[in-house]
Amino acid sequence: MKAEIITIGDELLIGQTVDTNSAWIGAELSQAGFDICRKISIHDRREDILDAVSEAVSRYDIVIITGGLGPTSDDITKQTLCDIFNGRMVLNPTVLSMIDEMMKRRGIAMNENNRKQAEVPDSCRVLYNKMGTAPGMWFEKEGTIFISLPGVPYEMKYIMNEHVLPELKKRFQSQVIIHRNIMTYGTSESKLAEILSGFEKSLPPEIKLAYLPSYGIIKLRLTGTGRNREIVENIVDEQVKKLYSIIPQLIYSEIDEPIESFIGNLLKERGLTICTAESCTGGKIAQMLTSIPGSSQYYKGSVIAYDNSIKTSLLNVPEEMISNYGAVSEQVVAKMATEVRKKFRTDYSVATSGIAGPDGGSESKPVGTVCIAVSSDNGVGVITEKYVFGNERILNINRFSIASLNLVRRQILQLQK
Amino acid sequence: MKAEIITIGDELLIGQTVDTNSAWIGAELSQAGFDICRKISIHDRREDILDAVSEAVSRYDIVIITGGLGPTSDDITKQTLCDIFNGRMVLNPTVLSMIDEMMKRRGIAMNENNRKQAEVPDSCRVLYNKMGTAPGMWFEKEGTIFISLPGVPYEMKYIMNEHVLPELKKRFQSQVIIHRNIMTYGTSESKLAEILSGFEKSLPPEIKLAYLPSYGIIKLRLTGTGRNREIVENIVDEQVKKLYSIIPQLIYSEIDEPIESFIGNLLKERGLTICTAESCTGGKIAQMLTSIPGSSQYYKGSVIAYDNSIKTSLLNVPEEMISNYGAVSEQVVAKMATEVRKKFRTDYSVATSGIAGPDGGSESKPVGTVCIAVSSDNGVGVITEKYVFGNERILNINRFSIASLNLVRRQILQLQK
Repeated sequence: MKAEIITIGDELLIGQTVDTNSAWIGAELSQAGFDICRKISIHDRREDILDAVSEAVSRYDIVIITGGLGPTSDDITKQTLCDIFNGRMVLNPTVLSMIDEMMKRRGIAMNENNRKQAEVPDSCRVLYNKMGTAPGMWFEKEGTIFISLPGVPYEMKYIMNEHVLPELKKRFQSQVIIHRNIMTYGTSESKLAEILSGFEKSLPPEIKLAYLPSYGIIKLRLTGTGRNREIVENIVDEQVKKLYSIIPQLIYSEIDEPIESFIGNLLKERGLTICTAESCTGGKIAQMLTSIPGSSQYYKGSVIAYDNSIKTSLLNVPEEMISNYGAVSEQVVAKMATEVRKKFRTDYSVATSGIAGPDGGSESKPVGTVCIAVSSDNGVGVITEKYVFGNERILNINRFSIASLNLVRRQILQLQK
Repeated sequence: MKAEIITIGDELLIGQTVDTNSAWIGAELSQAGFDICRKISIHDRREDILDAVSEAVSRYDIVIITGGLGPTSDDITKQTLCDIFNGRMVLNPTVLSMIDEMMKRRGIAMNENNRKQAEVPDSCRVLYNKMGTAPGMWFEKEGTIFISLPGVPYEMKYIMNEHVLPELKKRFQSQVIIHRNIMTYGTSESKLAEILSGFEKSLPPEIKLAYLPSYGIIKLRLTGTGRNREIVENIVDEQVKKLYSIIPQLIYSEIDEPIESFIGNLLKERGLTICTAESCTGGKIAQMLTSIPGSSQYYKGSVIAYDNSIKTSLLNVPEEMISNYGAVSEQVVAKMATEVRKKFRTDYSVATSGIAGPDGGSESKPVGTVCIAVSSDNGVGVITEKYVFGNERILNINRFSIASLNLVRRQILQLQK
């Protein structure tokens, strides 16, 4: 099963937008057992779309096309595809009523551009889009399926997950492919590869292992392929068990989930609450925790004490403590964690102070230094850690935040370092 | 002058790596006046490389190829190009001594793989690489230049900047391409297109307009093409002026920057400070503001009052106010903004309360509702706004936060709605 991805948009070619859509689609199709033969990005130009589509007909089983479906005049994908697939534009009443409802909600009057978005070629199957005004389209020609999707990432993902992937799996899946994701934290990719080199060498031929690192979290993906689901599942399960015996401390979840989701579930299951006191992470930990639906059940809030005066006035950190040990010190974060937990009356709290960069580093506390404290009433009291990461600000904020959430995990589960 | 970018690597197709190289190369070549006709990503497979190169010969003026030049067995680009361009592998003594020196500095012994990297086809011009062990290569065939570069971003960029771009500019610079980005906020893409339809129709033929939306912000990109830089710049400038006369309220910046960076500069220039009190946005606004280097100059901190009890205990919002008007009300956010500004002693403050979803909505306050208040001592006092956005949690949090920052912008600049 061969696949191609075509992304349309001048902004992709002149480098104003990094094409993350095709990476996401590539990962999903690859998981579903397709060989992604190539990805191609082209201009919003009629002749370029014609060329790309005609090159693909009968060469690939499926072609996913994104972009160029917006309401403005530079969006020409729909009309071009209509012509290629010998269609005629017709108003789709379902799409029209979906757009109408969406506009009403936002209190915006529908205009001619919106109405035009409800027109689709009569030669396609419409893929309804609850996330936006541009519907997806499914065409077939000479054995090749062409699927056109909006370029807005969450709209594209919605239509892929809701309509495209289930249908493709039904039609094409002859071979069983099973992916299992093991989420790890606590070591580097190269170190982990070293630890797992023996495990990797002894993997049966039908199993592949991939390392997918992101801000300190390394997702290990085991992929098993075969004809019989049960057999493949058993082989994968066995390898997962082996992994647990080699790196028990490093694994935090067997679901492909971010650490904030894991912690959310942990707190919810145990009926516990948490709050935060952030300095260098500037709200990132709070934002991660509250990105999870239902987080108001366990997350109470935060004091972001970005300025030192706020550490003193709102979190009662004595000025002498700051001048003696520095704002970035285990003493200060311990005090911040203790005080914020008192104020917010939660079971747990986590506090950070560090130097995200690019400026503000010193010999003894270089850019990338962070102190983290977790306070709890589970008998352990406050624990603190100090780490030094890299030079890049955004990267540091992310790594500081994930390290903080991992410390929370360790405290709740009472794990050793 | 037509250009193509070919990126080679399985990891790009299965979505394990997002292709940032081609975006960077696209931006550089576009600035240098090339029309990037397409970008294509292919497998590390001999036949795929052969296909891609033969498709490009005499079709484009230049083709930049990245990836597949590493020392391991899956890197086959160099040998394949050597065959395509009728070469013979020869040891390049300059490359060999550069690799030797690099290895010595790192204290690593040179091995067979390293020595192999010093072999290059005798049909190419070698582009020396001070940043790594794989040299770049410059081939020409039937009027098309093929440039092969390593996939490691900083190595690729080094060779591009040092060797490729200067040479291309010397040989090709005849056409000038100028991009100008106008950042707007305050209306939908379809509405903006309606407002600008007359403007768009009257654009001179050498100017193109594109709409690039993201969470309520719409970037308008004007692209001008011509022979003479000064003339093209003048034409683009004229169109920018026209835009200002049509949508003065909507434009917030002429630089391609996020709104948090614009606000950061505004505060810094005026020596002003700000703090936040977030409920539904859960730290997102703080995180956006603190993502900007140097934000500690103007950002003091936040109270994230996710739980209503914190609105009362830390921000003095009377319980009766919450029970009378609801936590999501203009009254409550106004109080939050006023109180947090007092506590943090800043010139401005912004507060949010809303329903991000997926649950928690009601008939009168559906999911997507947000109330925002900005407090200041510039004589206006507190202003509040209420909006209704969509159904999707993460999207809502982003849109709420950007709407909040826009309200801050309006307050600082004393703009009407």
